[in-house]
Amino acid sequence: MTTATAAPKGLEGIVAAETEMSFIDGEKGVLEYVGIAIDDLARHSCFEEVVYLLWNLKLPTVTELDAFKAELRGRYALPHGMLERIKRLPKDAEPMHVLRTLVSALGMHDPDPNAIDPKAARHKALNILGHTPTLIAMFDRHRKGEEIVHPDTSLSFAGNFLYMLNGERPTETMERAFDACMILHADHGLNNSTFTARVVISTLSDMYSAMTAAIGALRGPLHGGANEGVMHLLNDIASPKDVPARIEGMLERKEKIMGFGHRVYKAYDPRATYLKTLAKQLAEDTGNSALYEKSSAIEKVMEAKVAAKGIYPNVDFYSATTYHSIGLDLDLFTPMFAMSRVSGWAGHVLEQLADNRLYRPKAAYIGPHGVAYTPIGER
Amino acid sequence: MTTATAAPKGLEGIVAAETEMSFIDGEKGVLEYVGIAIDDLARHSCFEEVVYLLWNLKLPTVTELDAFKAELRGRYALPHGMLERIKRLPKDAEPMHVLRTLVSALGMHDPDPNAIDPKAARHKALNILGHTPTLIAMFDRHRKGEEIVHPDTSLSFAGNFLYMLNGERPTETMERAFDACMILHADHGLNNSTFTARVVISTLSDMYSAMTAAIGALRGPLHGGANEGVMHLLNDIASPKDVPARIEGMLERKEKIMGFGHRVYKAYDPRATYLKTLAKQLAEDTGNSALYEKSSAIEKVMEAKVAAKGIYPNVDFYSATTYHSIGLDLDLFTPMFAMSRVSGWAGHVLEQLADNRLYRPKAAYIGPHGVAYTPIGER
Repeated sequence: MTTATAAPKGLEGIVAAETEMSFIDGEKGVLEYVGIAIDDLARHSCFEEVVYLLWNLKLPTVTELDAFKAELRGRYALPHGMLERIKRLPKDAEPMHVLRTLVSALGMHDPDPNAIDPKAARHKALNILGHTPTLIAMFDRHRKGEEIVHPDTSLSFAGNFLYMLNGERPTETMERAFDACMILHADHGLNNSTFTARVVISTLSDMYSAMTAAIGALRGPLHGGANEGVMHLLNDIASPKDVPARIEGMLERKEKIMGFGHRVYKAYDPRATYLKTLAKQLAEDTGNSALYEKSSAIEKVMEAKVAAKGIYPNVDFYSATTYHSIGLDLDLFTPMFAMSRVSGWAGHVLEQLADNRLYRPKAAYIGPHGVAYTPIGER
Repeated sequence: MTTATAAPKGLEGIVAAETEMSFIDGEKGVLEYVGIAIDDLARHSCFEEVVYLLWNLKLPTVTELDAFKAELRGRYALPHGMLERIKRLPKDAEPMHVLRTLVSALGMHDPDPNAIDPKAARHKALNILGHTPTLIAMFDRHRKGEEIVHPDTSLSFAGNFLYMLNGERPTETMERAFDACMILHADHGLNNSTFTARVVISTLSDMYSAMTAAIGALRGPLHGGANEGVMHLLNDIASPKDVPARIEGMLERKEKIMGFGHRVYKAYDPRATYLKTLAKQLAEDTGNSALYEKSSAIEKVMEAKVAAKGIYPNVDFYSATTYHSIGLDLDLFTPMFAMSRVSGWAGHVLEQLADNRLYRPKAAYIGPHGVAYTPIGER
């Protein structure tokens, strides 16, 4: 038999790919996209520029960014037949199951779905990125029995999504906060859904298969589903003054506090810093300060109790507050994550295709050998 | 930073999971399901019994097998609304994109799609296994403009599928050969799509997400898509007498001969032995001997030229001949693989859930660090 090396469970600590997109130093609390600190990008860039950066490994010039924005806006509209498909979806279906199904269905509407040469793969990545907000917003209006709002190509990725979802243009703060959330979620090393996308494309499958698989992975409560958990916790605490007793009680009972701690970060999640500021500003703007105050109170208790153990708020913690203040339904939180992460998944697919080797690890077989097939009458 | 271990590309040789289902010794050409040689199962068992074996790690008694068959037959029929969905699919869509989309859509029709406790997960596995043949057969009839044939629960998994597809009951040889193909494709260690299913479910996502992802992985030409390549080769050779010149020429030009060689097997693929016999019998029964003769001639040339290098026919080689003789369209070959492998995927999902740890490897970042964000006007 060929030699085999047993890896730690979950492939923890195993380097399974190379990337030029994002760098994480969990000990120091560093996240960089192509070498640029995430906090700088969140404060000064926009989502479209960040996607350009991830896919081209350099910041665009004014001309390049304008061209890229125009290309993406050209993809806000869905292929013919997709809206009819959305209108026939069960209204009570969970949005992540819907999104997974609709992104998969895009593959049926593509006349050449399997093309994965660099140009075609990039083209499909742009299509999926452009279509995803429209799929989510249109499904949300369909399930609420509201009139479908068609995309407005004069608006940014973030602005257009909120417009299609709510039927009115977002305030500047809302658009800015939402755009920052998109930037902060775009890429994050070889997280589970990104790894899934790379494993799937390594069979030389197609962009739709890789994206669909990644959406399914992101759905899980141990991955993208975590931000819903934060909201459940916040909703479950009536007022900021109830926070200390509640959180201290949970800590004593060793219950997990959603939105705190991260398998990768043992320092403050660098994605949470600016989000906290934005969440505060949104709370002030919308007059919905109770939620921010509860969040802030939770962070204070956690800081006093467990920061020494390396447990800090993660990106989910303040993105939950942000999404809620913008008016998003709880079950759209994970689709928001997907909407942004499509850019990272696609970038990793392009990287994988540029230097591919089929992922095909081994399983250790721990059962019996040489068992006879006993005829059924003799069992 | 935490220590990281660089793994070989494609995680080759890395043990990434434990399993009690299948054991492969590629050097010796051994494949066992729960310790029983695959050739014994292909000759003496039936697909339903093999699925029972994989999911329960023991052969069933008569009573247990009858109960399991009845449960599975109860799932041949689709949930309400699925047939309407199938009837609206683009007729020119590729069946694997369709299957991926429809299995994903099953998640929207399940009132409790995310339940993954052992009982619920097994229940959903049985649903998906029972529904998959119906989804494929109904789509095939829809695209051909033929009347939909509803399942016949008096028939076996294999027999009912061929009945729904062709509108008539298969001959005994056809059903037997097709059932053997289902047995031979049910599980195969930690192949790419199975690994995909385990990676996805490790986020505690759901059975639909894991199965959808695996279908997308299987689509790839480096994985399940390989059996279509065999058929292209066979179709491309006019007559058995043209085989030697053609194959020898391909070998000289170092072109890949589809259906030969396997990353795992360096000996005769144990799944190919009995299939070869069945393919021959089918050729005799159907009077379509040219295809078998071409296959046999290719194997002869390959045996003389490259068997010494460990390159033998693999399971794809004779399954292509078998599927073609049964009358299946070329683009249904990979869906047939999926229809069987659903059982292995589901078994691995159950194993993963029983002892889960999130798959979250690392990427080696190979780009620059500490890059300043230059304002766009200064680039």
